[in-house]
Amino acid sequence: MAKKDKGSPVRDALRVGAELPDPGSTPVGPGKKPKAVAKLDDAAARLSSLQEALYAEGVGGGRRNVLLVLQGMDTSGKGGTVSHVLGLVNPMGVRYAGFKAPTPAERRHHYLWRIRKQLPVPGQIGVFDRSHYEDILVPRVTGLLTAAERRRRYSEINAFERELADAGTTVVKVFLHISPEEQLDRLRARLQTPEKHWKYNPGDLDARSHWPAYQEAYADIFKKTSTAHAPWHVVPADRKWYRNWAVAELLIETLAELAPRFPEPGFDVDTELAKLKGVGVPG
Amino acid sequence: MAKKDKGSPVRDALRVGAELPDPGSTPVGPGKKPKAVAKLDDAAARLSSLQEALYAEGVGGGRRNVLLVLQGMDTSGKGGTVSHVLGLVNPMGVRYAGFKAPTPAERRHHYLWRIRKQLPVPGQIGVFDRSHYEDILVPRVTGLLTAAERRRRYSEINAFERELADAGTTVVKVFLHISPEEQLDRLRARLQTPEKHWKYNPGDLDARSHWPAYQEAYADIFKKTSTAHAPWHVVPADRKWYRNWAVAELLIETLAELAPRFPEPGFDVDTELAKLKGVGVPG
Repeated sequence: MAKKDKGSPVRDALRVGAELPDPGSTPVGPGKKPKAVAKLDDAAARLSSLQEALYAEGVGGGRRNVLLVLQGMDTSGKGGTVSHVLGLVNPMGVRYAGFKAPTPAERRHHYLWRIRKQLPVPGQIGVFDRSHYEDILVPRVTGLLTAAERRRRYSEINAFERELADAGTTVVKVFLHISPEEQLDRLRARLQTPEKHWKYNPGDLDARSHWPAYQEAYADIFKKTSTAHAPWHVVPADRKWYRNWAVAELLIETLAELAPRFPEPGFDVDTELAKLKGVGVPG
Repeated sequence: MAKKDKGSPVRDALRVGAELPDPGSTPVGPGKKPKAVAKLDDAAARLSSLQEALYAEGVGGGRRNVLLVLQGMDTSGKGGTVSHVLGLVNPMGVRYAGFKAPTPAERRHHYLWRIRKQLPVPGQIGVFDRSHYEDILVPRVTGLLTAAERRRRYSEINAFERELADAGTTVVKVFLHISPEEQLDRLRARLQTPEKHWKYNPGDLDARSHWPAYQEAYADIFKKTSTAHAPWHVVPADRKWYRNWAVAELLIETLAELAPRFPEPGFDVDTELAKLKGVGVPG
């Protein structure tokens, strides 16, 4: 646990660059499903033990934690990622928060108000299913954000994430990158499966009709908010098995670099063992 | 999903009675580990699909949810239950809250204040790892609660749980019942395994020295707060495999009785499918 990882090949390969990878590609790691599924199985044990060490460190007074920010177009697999990747670790150490369109009550506050309320505590892995980035994306695409307001929000978000880093939170920002063709298939599947109807929203088609504007907005977000302490990663997400493997590895590399440590006991082990020997069975 | 369960054999068998079962016993269900482990595997799929339906119902505007309250002596397996049972379902639908000794800031509020902040929202399964019952247990055993104050807390807690039931929350209260012999083994194991040191607290021995007083306090709690809408269940917990199976079944029976329903779509499926056909690939 205390060993440093030898590097971050997956983070390095998926860090956002000038060009986005093809949504169906597999830029690093397994290129076929059976291998990716087997590797995710292996990853489960590592992720789980790193998470336990982080949690233990938090119990011992450490303040560090991790925040996974998931963004992507509708059907890009944010929920599936939570289920298949975060589902691998102990629920005690996970804090999930999904952000939908803000309610009227939420709108009366600064847009970071509801975000701050959902931050993970020390030792936890927090997951944001959508996030404060929606507060640039949606108003920008729907034309409700002036260029000046947009600049202000970028600057606020960068300051906010700087503050998180200073407070001990490692922010892992992931864009799940799907193709419009794949989205069409997934929307159709939702409509054709009654148990998936609840995941479908007619508004998804409106958002889809603004696809190029969203891609442009994301490109701008990557340019303005991919910082050294909170860079963006682009995960090709047309293949669910690749997406799951990649997000698991991003978390593992992040945690391995943190190298969380089980806390030193605040007691003398031998003394306590001796006390236990003297203890009878009460009752 | 919409089918009613045929009954609640596990809930019925484990509902608290005048006498507590032996902590090593298996009053209902599998009596051997291999069978219990296999049955828990089967239970995973049922639990997961019931949880998804509850979650979907919540997204569709339903207000129902479930709150699992876990109580038990130190090492009784509250954390293990969260990991092995709640770990079977999608983290999106689980809200975990652990309650330690209240902080000075928390003490300035009513004891239910911090509890209310952690209640699950509609569609979720909430888990309390310790709970408002600690606010009767600990001060009672340490002599800080007068009989009058205790009566007031019982009445407040019953009113609180009545309010939860009225708001759509099904409270499942579980006492993980271990023997003092088993606790001794588990405390020793924590001390003998460096990666488990963080789970050990010298104060656990003080609590252990008050074992009979805690058992008496629990007996009184069961008598005063096992209500029709929020009964107590006693799970023999010396065998971890039995404990995991039993808590999973308690949740499954509870969810099956709720029979959560996928919401009716708020749109016409055929219209949406037709719209999809007309949709091109943007960009």
